[in-house]
Amino acid sequence: MYNPQLNKHGELQHLLTLEGLPASIITRILDTAASFVSVSDREVKKVPLMRGKSVFNLFFENSTRTRTTFEIASTRLSADVINLNISASSASKGESLLDTIDNLSAMHADMFVVRHAQSGAPYLIAKHLVETGQDHVHVVNAGDGRHAHPTQGLLDMYTIRHYKKDFHNLTVAIVGDILHSRVARSDIHGLTTLGVPEVRAIGPRTLLPSSLEQMGLRVFNDMNEGLKGVDVIIMLRLQNERMTGALLPSAQEYFKSYGLTPERLALAKPDAIVMHPGPMNRGVEIDSAVADGAQAVILPQVTFGIAVRMAVMSMLASA
Amino acid sequence: MYNPQLNKHGELQHLLTLEGLPASIITRILDTAASFVSVSDREVKKVPLMRGKSVFNLFFENSTRTRTTFEIASTRLSADVINLNISASSASKGESLLDTIDNLSAMHADMFVVRHAQSGAPYLIAKHLVETGQDHVHVVNAGDGRHAHPTQGLLDMYTIRHYKKDFHNLTVAIVGDILHSRVARSDIHGLTTLGVPEVRAIGPRTLLPSSLEQMGLRVFNDMNEGLKGVDVIIMLRLQNERMTGALLPSAQEYFKSYGLTPERLALAKPDAIVMHPGPMNRGVEIDSAVADGAQAVILPQVTFGIAVRMAVMSMLASA
Amino acid sequence: MYNPQLNKHGELQHLLTLEGLPASIITRILDTAASFVSVSDREVKKVPLMRGKSVFNLFFENSTRTRTTFEIASTRLSADVINLNISASSASKGESLLDTIDNLSAMHADMFVVRHAQSGAPYLIAKHLVETGQDHVHVVNAGDGRHAHPTQGLLDMYTIRHYKKDFHNLTVAIVGDILHSRVARSDIHGLTTLGVPEVRAIGPRTLLPSSLEQMGLRVFNDMNEGLKGVDVIIMLRLQNERMTGALLPSAQEYFKSYGLTPERLALAKPDAIVMHPGPMNRGVEIDSAVADGAQAVILPQVTFGIAVRMAVMSMLASA
Repeated sequence: MYNPQLNKHGELQHLLTLEGLPASIITRILDTAASFVSVSDREVKKVPLMRGKSVFNLFFENSTRTRTTFEIASTRLSADVINLNISASSASKGESLLDTIDNLSAMHADMFVVRHAQSGAPYLIAKHLVETGQDHVHVVNAGDGRHAHPTQGLLDMYTIRHYKKDFHNLTVAIVGDILHSRVARSDIHGLTTLGVPEVRAIGPRTLLPSSLEQMGLRVFNDMNEGLKGVDVIIMLRLQNERMTGALLPSAQEYFKSYGLTPERLALAKPDAIVMHPGPMNRGVEIDSAVADGAQAVILPQVTFGIAVRMAVMSMLASA
Repeated sequence: MYNPQLNKHGELQHLLTLEGLPASIITRILDTAASFVSVSDREVKKVPLMRGKSVFNLFFENSTRTRTTFEIASTRLSADVINLNISASSASKGESLLDTIDNLSAMHADMFVVRHAQSGAPYLIAKHLVETGQDHVHVVNAGDGRHAHPTQGLLDMYTIRHYKKDFHNLTVAIVGDILHSRVARSDIHGLTTLGVPEVRAIGPRTLLPSSLEQMGLRVFNDMNEGLKGVDVIIMLRLQNERMTGALLPSAQEYFKSYGLTPERLALAKPDAIVMHPGPMNRGVEIDSAVADGAQAVILPQVTFGIAVRMAVMSMLASA
Repeated sequence: MYNPQLNKHGELQHLLTLEGLPASIITRILDTAASFVSVSDREVKKVPLMRGKSVFNLFFENSTRTRTTFEIASTRLSADVINLNISASSASKGESLLDTIDNLSAMHADMFVVRHAQSGAPYLIAKHLVETGQDHVHVVNAGDGRHAHPTQGLLDMYTIRHYKKDFHNLTVAIVGDILHSRVARSDIHGLTTLGVPEVRAIGPRTLLPSSLEQMGLRVFNDMNEGLKGVDVIIMLRLQNERMTGALLPSAQEYFKSYGLTPERLALAKPDAIVMHPGPMNRGVEIDSAVADGAQAVILPQVTFGIAVRMAVMSMLASA
């Protein structure tokens, strides 16, 4: 597959997926993010790196939480932000996705942050921009279908590096509905690229894609087995719609088999960290005692997420 | 009741209610607001007091009007504003109110402006922030249920002081649906604290809470009686839903008994001022001749409201 | 009709319609816009002309696209923008349009950008502001009913001037649903005022108002006839609701008679330009080969539109 993420100088032109992104670029993003973590602590939380740049949040799928993180990151880079919630209804007004893109690009947009229910939509947009020579516009994938959520993946890598320093001796477990999770997919690509020797997938058969073993993961249906000796536990959110569907008996049953309780957490290494992309379903995939416990790094993930998005956006803007 | 509004230095940490707020602090807010009234008249209407600060408008209940006043106040203080309309539906996505708060706080929020249909929600948020040591975040109550609307109360105090100079010789009448009005409750606490000797409540029995007399108010069911000799008339908005409910016969009947007409206004002191929090129902609680007349100070209330909100926010930000 | 667009010094106080706007003022707007075209190309796309000014986008009718163009224009002038989507439902909350206007004006608004489904609403607002002495607030009509869309008209004039230099020797054809089009009305007034000797209207009888010939236009029901030898073709968007209505047989039939194909375009002058206000219905009023072809200037229209809106807003703000 043609990869439009990098320009001819090997710089990041668009951020679409962590799949195939060189470790050197991921590391550069994490290093840049580290410099922004301190910005958020300052009295005046702004740097002028994107002053006068126009960032468009193109949310074809509603997500207040993700949109907010990008809006804050843009604002702290001094960019101007325009929020566009493009519902299915207005998209059906007869204008094609690419006509919308060309229009906004003609307004001298500098960046599109794209959230879309369909896998591949940000890739389509980036490909179109490259093919039509609109090199002044950069695309950030803010989550597309089941495909990828690269900034979430990057902030997870940042968090792991922050607490564990090195990737080369870690065992990381991803727990839950991997089948429907773009977060899991981005995490797996990030972990593999950065050299994590053992990545485990834990969940019921119905929620694990069959391809995991080919991707080099160890697969566990028994959570107690899977958690033994791990350094990092990445819990996934169980979507409400799965709970009422045919894939799962009930939320209570799910918690009994795959909820992260203090007892189960004790099976991991004593200094293991617990991550979650949020929003959490307390009592479904995670026990409140764990979510609020000493090993949880769920709120630091949020803080690092702003810095990582600032890093990605500022690197794209200077490409 | 534990009051989390003040920090250990006695400074304003959160603004939740005027109940129990010392007169000295109210007066300081009004004095600070006076300095901002002139800012809005300047060619460049901005001061850099909150540059780089992130203000989140958390509106769990929709209110374009109130949200706009806070957005303008924030902008004129040079803060960055993020608007979040958190409908009941998305709140039901499984994340608790306090998880949402912790998340936004982890993004290095500086201030939450909270509107909520449930009384006590901003108090709950402030209490949680204090208890978890998140002292960098301040809460402003922008209206909670029937409980309080402190910035409206403060702007009403500002307006009265502007036109009447001194509180200690005034008779103030509040007219209408006091039972359901958070504005009335905040006004009563403000007026009492600032030393107004006589506060009157005027309205039909069904719309006056039984506790008014215990709070020191004089209660009138006959409007003509109640208006005699007053200095200030605060009209309340009659909510549409009341008009069709069992509490009132009809909007026409209401206007006949409690609508403020020029004839009724003539019963007050000749220099009495007429206030209304807006939006007005012309011909229901107030006659257009009064609303647009020389004694109405309804639009100045709006102007002062921006300055008062700037005062509250800048004081909180520097606490 | 009393024209509140100009103040007593003959300067632009409000922009409501191109009807009756002197050619000298239109030309000044286009000249000012030319200076802003280069701003959008700069690294930092901002000028401080409206720093500290408060612009309210009052959209009583939803239009993400038009709202976005005004938001970008305001932002690049360094103004503060407040977006208010005032749906019919909240307008029915009992407050009149003019009470809303007075309230926002009391917050020291500097400019209202008004979009309204009813023809004449921006005129009503401007008239009220003039009559009540609120001279500090300026109104820009962003489209009212079937009446006018003056900034679209101006950007069309800018585009024609950019490509054709002079208006005095041109033949311009407007094609499609002129009956329901505020764009067409504004274009006709602009073209006539700027001295275009021949303006043609092309469309089916059911979509052409009877007044066109009195306005000096040549009317054609046969598109091939109408396009012969023209310099400029302005295609109009066919509203979806028309296609299913009684006015037209079907989208396919419409395309057969009035769709702009390469074959039909060949009937115009070889250097004719093709314009469209967007969003396009490809395959309904315009063939993709034409929309993406060398003679189309549809995306430059968008770019010029930002500059024209910046010109209008900055001129109003300094009036």
